[in-house]
Amino acid sequence: MGFSHFFLRRVIRPGDRVIDATCGRGQDTLFLAGLVGSCGEVWAFDVQEEALAETAERLRSAGCSPWVNLVHAGHESLASYVREPVRAVVFNLGYLPGDRAGLVTRPDTTLLALDQSVRLLLPGGMVVLAIYTGHQGGDEEAACVEAWASGLSSREFNVWKSRQLNRSDSAPYVVIVGKVPPGK
Amino acid sequence: MGFSHFFLRRVIRPGDRVIDATCGRGQDTLFLAGLVGSCGEVWAFDVQEEALAETAERLRSAGCSPWVNLVHAGHESLASYVREPVRAVVFNLGYLPGDRAGLVTRPDTTLLALDQSVRLLLPGGMVVLAIYTGHQGGDEEAACVEAWASGLSSREFNVWKSRQLNRSDSAPYVVIVGKVPPGK
Repeated sequence: MGFSHFFLRRVIRPGDRVIDATCGRGQDTLFLAGLVGSCGEVWAFDVQEEALAETAERLRSAGCSPWVNLVHAGHESLASYVREPVRAVVFNLGYLPGDRAGLVTRPDTTLLALDQSVRLLLPGGMVVLAIYTGHQGGDEEAACVEAWASGLSSREFNVWKSRQLNRSDSAPYVVIVGKVPPGK
Repeated sequence: MGFSHFFLRRVIRPGDRVIDATCGRGQDTLFLAGLVGSCGEVWAFDVQEEALAETAERLRSAGCSPWVNLVHAGHESLASYVREPVRAVVFNLGYLPGDRAGLVTRPDTTLLALDQSVRLLLPGGMVVLAIYTGHQGGDEEAACVEAWASGLSSREFNVWKSRQLNRSDSAPYVVIVGKVPPGK
């Protein structure tokens, strides 16, 4: 989604470590791999082998495979794989468009992944969530995520919810959690 | 406000023409003058002579006066002064912090200024509004602005409302109106 890429482009620098918490078809994984470059590192998580295979192919075609770790695991275990601070974590919450299995992200595992993400974040870094609703359970997950985000300390985190005023209420929207740099 | 500056930095280039529709104490005017540089041009509007004088002094100290036009007029007449397309228009809606006169922006003139602003906008350019409520009439003005923004064509304009989830509901928030470039 263009709006969240706007922020990621601004924050991510070559050499950074970043996480794609829900790699899906790998569009964001490839975008992140391009931003961090070959001196950086990307971890991309998905529970679906098919999604990882498609992402792997996409990365191979673009020559970005060497600095991307594709992890066949749910994002709730990301802190077991990523041990060093990261500049950014990207989530696409909801369903994988066009997916036949009907898999969706779930509030309980999403909240675990979010907690781990903010703990891994470098000062000045951000967690970016694109939130899709409109599927069963989508509104519930969105409400859980917003409640979680609303409870973050405003001294430690800038938390912005952005939605499109001239689109349907069910259009995807964006939540940005930015970790305040020290002294700001 | 940091969030709106994030977008302006991304969009405005040296040499651009931009408008500060509500110059107030001139912080945004100076910020815009720095982004466009001496080959660019800024128009800054205010109905208060005192605000313009303070802005003029701020610009003089920074050496930015030569490419800033300070206009003693309400923003509803901006199209009479600016005849060429602009990259960005910035509004701070509400009250001038610390102002003794208790002047606030008003829905009728604000909507006229917004209509003129989107007509002046270059493709890829944006109108950025920081909206302060909490004063008398503030909620009414905010509702008018949101209704106006919601009615903009989604083919021509991307319209995002961004508010902070972990702050009070009366905290200032941001509306961004981006003019879609041709072919997108």
